[in-house]
Amino acid sequence: MAAERYEIRIAGSGGQGVILATELIGQAITLYEEGLYVVQSQAYGPEARGGKSKAEVVISSEPIDYPKVMAPNLQVILTQAAVEYAPDTAHGGRIVYDDFFVTDLPGVSSGYGGGSVEDSRGRIDARIYTLPIVRTARDKLEREIVTNMVALGCVARVLDLEKIASSDSLRKAIADHFPAAKIAELNIQAFNEGYEIFRQSPLP
Amino acid sequence: MAAERYEIRIAGSGGQGVILATELIGQAITLYEEGLYVVQSQAYGPEARGGKSKAEVVISSEPIDYPKVMAPNLQVILTQAAVEYAPDTAHGGRIVYDDFFVTDLPGVSSGYGGGSVEDSRGRIDARIYTLPIVRTARDKLEREIVTNMVALGCVARVLDLEKIASSDSLRKAIADHFPAAKIAELNIQAFNEGYEIFRQSPLP
Repeated sequence: MAAERYEIRIAGSGGQGVILATELIGQAITLYEEGLYVVQSQAYGPEARGGKSKAEVVISSEPIDYPKVMAPNLQVILTQAAVEYAPDTAHGGRIVYDDFFVTDLPGVSSGYGGGSVEDSRGRIDARIYTLPIVRTARDKLEREIVTNMVALGCVARVLDLEKIASSDSLRKAIADHFPAAKIAELNIQAFNEGYEIFRQSPLP
Repeated sequence: MAAERYEIRIAGSGGQGVILATELIGQAITLYEEGLYVVQSQAYGPEARGGKSKAEVVISSEPIDYPKVMAPNLQVILTQAAVEYAPDTAHGGRIVYDDFFVTDLPGVSSGYGGGSVEDSRGRIDARIYTLPIVRTARDKLEREIVTNMVALGCVARVLDLEKIASSDSLRKAIADHFPAAKIAELNIQAFNEGYEIFRQSPLP
């Protein structure tokens, strides 16, 4: 992998399956990639009430001593409430917003597909993508429940670009997770859609 | 809760469902207890190959800055390979071994239900329980797949003793997780068995 340590956070609401999406990253790397360490985690408790949900992954070429995500290199933000996590993003990192549930991005300095965000904590120096994640699950696949797999497809495209893991490793981990062939197929199709909407977005 | 911070590790092999067991602790505390923070995590990567699997939970009355488990207050160890984690146990903590898969405990100074362990890293000052977790799932419930729920029942008994969470919170989290009533019932039955085998063991 290009970076020594790469941090990913997927944030949304309970029921969007963000924990499973991050677990599959861990399983894909364990089983189908070589020489990488992953710690996957989620916080529960008072802060997680009100439907907010986030799950995180740290990937490293070295054993991970500090598994807490401090400055995610990649964030996928699926709800308006989760936009509050945006300022944590690492400088030069990436933020993928869902274009259906995230409607209010104060200070976005350019439109769809690129730009930067300012908030009260200052300018976020990150590449911004606003993509139809929930809409793809709901309208194209007719199963909102696969929102997490569309999001995971976006993550997979970034893991490709960063030379961390191949998207086929993730497809295999998805297939492992869903023993019923038809359900595996739906989830992989959603994953592939997510991969494509990121690949075709203006900022690669 | 009595302690400011309480660390739990469940260790076994892939397929024993240790990740789900720890996730349900997080969900139970989020939804059905007040004022506690939980971070649940698992490490993947080269060290996790060969079938070893461990999942961890940190519970705290304060926000958790360092989510890595350093010295678990409670460990549930379901395979011989996972016995290597035993020396991490906190002084005065508890170790629950499965009596079917864990057959070799060098230096156990007393038998079933109590004692302490020595290994190359020195004496482990912990309360030791050797309980029929896998056998209860396999023989009594006739479903080895509920091994994790029997283990979770043991954990629940300790969370009761430590005044951290009530076992009913965990039962509700299990029921939430399994929408099919019959499957929920089987899992709660396994949980109840685990709770009882710990409760009836010689060292409470």
